Amino acid sequence: MSMIKDEAAVIILFGATGDLAKRKLYPAIYSLFREGQLAKNFAVIGVGRRQLSKSEFYAHIKNALELFSDYNVDEEFNEFVSHFQYLSVDIHNTMEYQELLNLTLSLEEGYNIAGNRLFYLAIAPELFEPVSFNLKKTGLLDNKGWKRLVIEKPFGKDYHSAQDLNHKITQVFNEEEIYRIDHYLGKEMVQNIEVIRFANAFFEPVWNNRYISNIQLTSSETVGVEARGDYYDQVGALRDMVQNHMLQMVTMMAMEPPSRLKAEAIRDEKVKVLRSIRRFESAEEIHQNIVRGQYNSGEIQGQSVSGYREEENVSPKSNTETFVAAKIMIDNFRWSGVPFYIRTGKRLPQKATEIIVEFKNLPNLYFNKQKTLEPNLLVIRIHPEEGIHLKLNAKNPGTDGTILPISMDFCHKNTVEGRTPEAYERLIKDALEGDSTFFTRWDEVSIAWKVVDPIIKEWSNSDFALHHYRAGEWGPLEAKQLLERDGFKWWPVYGEDPNRRKKECSL
Amino acid sequence: MSMIKDEAAVIILFGATGDLAKRKLYPAIYSLFREGQLAKNFAVIGVGRRQLSKSEFYAHIKNALELFSDYNVDEEFNEFVSHFQYLSVDIHNTMEYQELLNLTLSLEEGYNIAGNRLFYLAIAPELFEPVSFNLKKTGLLDNKGWKRLVIEKPFGKDYHSAQDLNHKITQVFNEEEIYRIDHYLGKEMVQNIEVIRFANAFFEPVWNNRYISNIQLTSSETVGVEARGDYYDQVGALRDMVQNHMLQMVTMMAMEPPSRLKAEAIRDEKVKVLRSIRRFESAEEIHQNIVRGQYNSGEIQGQSVSGYREEENVSPKSNTETFVAAKIMIDNFRWSGVPFYIRTGKRLPQKATEIIVEFKNLPNLYFNKQKTLEPNLLVIRIHPEEGIHLKLNAKNPGTDGTILPISMDFCHKNTVEGRTPEAYERLIKDALEGDSTFFTRWDEVSIAWKVVDPIIKEWSNSDFALHHYRAGEWGPLEAKQLLERDGFKWWPVYGEDPNRRKKECSL
Repeated sequence: MSMIKDEAAVIILFGATGDLAKRKLYPAIYSLFREGQLAKNFAVIGVGRRQLSKSEFYAHIKNALELFSDYNVDEEFNEFVSHFQYLSVDIHNTMEYQELLNLTLSLEEGYNIAGNRLFYLAIAPELFEPVSFNLKKTGLLDNKGWKRLVIEKPFGKDYHSAQDLNHKITQVFNEEEIYRIDHYLGKEMVQNIEVIRFANAFFEPVWNNRYISNIQLTSSETVGVEARGDYYDQVGALRDMVQNHMLQMVTMMAMEPPSRLKAEAIRDEKVKVLRSIRRFESAEEIHQNIVRGQYNSGEIQGQSVSGYREEENVSPKSNTETFVAAKIMIDNFRWSGVPFYIRTGKRLPQKATEIIVEFKNLPNLYFNKQKTLEPNLLVIRIHPEEGIHLKLNAKNPGTDGTILPISMDFCHKNTVEGRTPEAYERLIKDALEGDSTFFTRWDEVSIAWKVVDPIIKEWSNSDFALHHYRAGEWGPLEAKQLLERDGFKWWPVYGEDPNRRKKECSL
Repeated sequence: MSMIKDEAAVIILFGATGDLAKRKLYPAIYSLFREGQLAKNFAVIGVGRRQLSKSEFYAHIKNALELFSDYNVDEEFNEFVSHFQYLSVDIHNTMEYQELLNLTLSLEEGYNIAGNRLFYLAIAPELFEPVSFNLKKTGLLDNKGWKRLVIEKPFGKDYHSAQDLNHKITQVFNEEEIYRIDHYLGKEMVQNIEVIRFANAFFEPVWNNRYISNIQLTSSETVGVEARGDYYDQVGALRDMVQNHMLQMVTMMAMEPPSRLKAEAIRDEKVKVLRSIRRFESAEEIHQNIVRGQYNSGEIQGQSVSGYREEENVSPKSNTETFVAAKIMIDNFRWSGVPFYIRTGKRLPQKATEIIVEFKNLPNLYFNKQKTLEPNLLVIRIHPEEGIHLKLNAKNPGTDGTILPISMDFCHKNTVEGRTPEAYERLIKDALEGDSTFFTRWDEVSIAWKVVDPIIKEWSNSDFALHHYRAGEWGPLEAKQLLERDGFKWWPVYGEDPNRRKKECSL
């Protein structure tokens, strides 16, 4: 049934008054609506704990759009919001699901929807299981059309909890009905990695260990934990960022060309990459390859900020990492010997997600005035700017024969007409269309946990090194040394020049 | 003696009142002077037929600089011009060379120059021989320092005349004392070809017939023959542009990495390329691979212009070509199967010299919404803009999965501080320093004539096809068909957008 190419569906959104719905989901659905990318006969049931009247719910959505949508909240809003209903449901009370079923059926009849249902769980992960079971128990899954479950991270907190959760969910939904969101995969430039790699004769031939010396992936934030201290202190950067987003980006960069550019074929290749990641087998190896950091007080963009242990709802003795740098080796024929360096953290100097491919230098046979030539770089800028940057070598004009590194930039928003869709727009549309390419499959999730689990285990030892860094610096010194030991360095994000990205995009 | 690293010399410039001296040589020497690139004790003797007083000569130089120099003619001009002397010499009268010798000797003494002499013949090629012989006969070459002969094109009008000329000159000068100017080799971006190729890991691995489908070299002018009708009508585009400049650019693109980046090693490699060019052995092959064109009247940038046969000093029945397009095959391991398409002509829509490397498409396995992907292009802009342009494929943002060609530009003058030196500056400085890298060696010249001779011979047959084109169009239709037969097309100069180059360089 999941193959039916019918996008018209009832979206049943659990967590309708939550933060994610407000910041991301309503704006995404509104953008899809404004761009004519939704079926005319879509319907959304917002499910929440709170009691809300329809007009309160509509006001809530309106407020969300005014704050977070790229589109004006104008006369089209009324038409848009008329597709929405709100229902207060106690998630643990089976009786209340009956009402949800009745409302769903009546919307399906009213909108002439053939029974397709998208269950979007924008709620705490411990609720995934009871909701799934109650949906089944009350007959909400006995529909004629397709049914799909969209769930947000975190999917477990280690391999065993993830396996347990998966076991429970798959008693209710089939694997192919489960859409695990990794919103990094919805980002335009992450998706562009496939095109850069497989549609450009420049890059495909050099995309291997003969020509690439190392790949660096950075996802940095300037913010601290903000209001999420109680959640974050239990999780840390390794689970929050590395197990999912960072490893997913690694797989996009590293995978072999899939047999088809289709969900299962791509995910097969990504799983192969995850399988080839060299496991960390001892505390010693974890010491050598992974840097655990936590921010102290410091300064961000001229503002004094507190250290992590002073943050609200964080234990003053917390060893939770707010920074991770790691050296990942992929032991396959393409990547043997090429380190993938990843780093992610909070309270870093700049907010940026970017991937830098550093190419091996040609032998410097000719240009002896320099000791070394600068290597060629390909930089994929993912966020907040989106674009491609190349660093090449050219002749310094004049007669002295020296070499000058030059920059070539492609800035997405300068060239492309219209706006770049947000990750959630793409992902919601994909889920409605049944395209799971940019969602993570269970085997991906499970192997990623197996990569990360030994690190979690060692770090749970309170003696394990935690390196502190001043807020506003690029993590602890050890993150720098991680590359220096291999003869490399972190290429600075935007060349350490906060104006650089603006310049690139000022054409 | 030629190895002495002493740049201080007397430059004896024949053709001191000529067009080349005025437009190029005085401005080049002035720029070198202004930039401190000349020895303090340089001296120039301007030799011409006309009688000129010193002040008339100085006024002539001043006028040349005011018209053509990048530098202001200010208080430094007086110091500059004080290094110049003028002598009226009847080139055929040996007696008058005695005066030239005396002046040279007195300047050498006055400036404390160790007898180094650079003879620059900016005169008609039929005078190269008598001048050389008279220089020798009157003892001007019996100097203690080095002596060098700089000569301008054309070097012969076919292989035999070139051989004859060379034979005569080499009775007076050694090959390593002869600096044959090809001013295209002095252009900054032509010299940059070496750096692009040998200092960038992006390009070196794909610089061969596995990845490159074809290379296109265009050197186009918007002007007609102007005042040079009597000269041009005897010569034509094949001799004027193809035998020298166009084939030289082909060799720079195609040569193997030289053993050292030094004159003889580079020229050895260029000769190997010329030797590997497939010769045209029959009229049929010349018909198939070379297009001879001549402009009719038409329009250039909104102005009506005459046809070639109506130009001043051009025969109304002239079959001289003002346009050549050719397909050149280089039969070696690197380039087998990769056509080098060249085109050059007058009265074309835009003035531009650029080289376009078209890469083979990757198999389009994934992006089926397009019938074909656009190939990757590397464009080396040589003149009038200088820079590098890349055309790549990226994802069209949004959810439709189509591919968009994107542009990345590096514009020389945006990035580089200071001005880019003119070709003649570089070449004069190189000659003074004894660096012959960017001058053509006799074996290069001779083999280039051997490539071109069979074409000259066939075209001398008055029945041979001459294709007319409207002034202001990109040559005759046959030039287009030349590529279409191979499944290619001429990539438009600046994307046919006269504003494009301005945009690229507007950062």
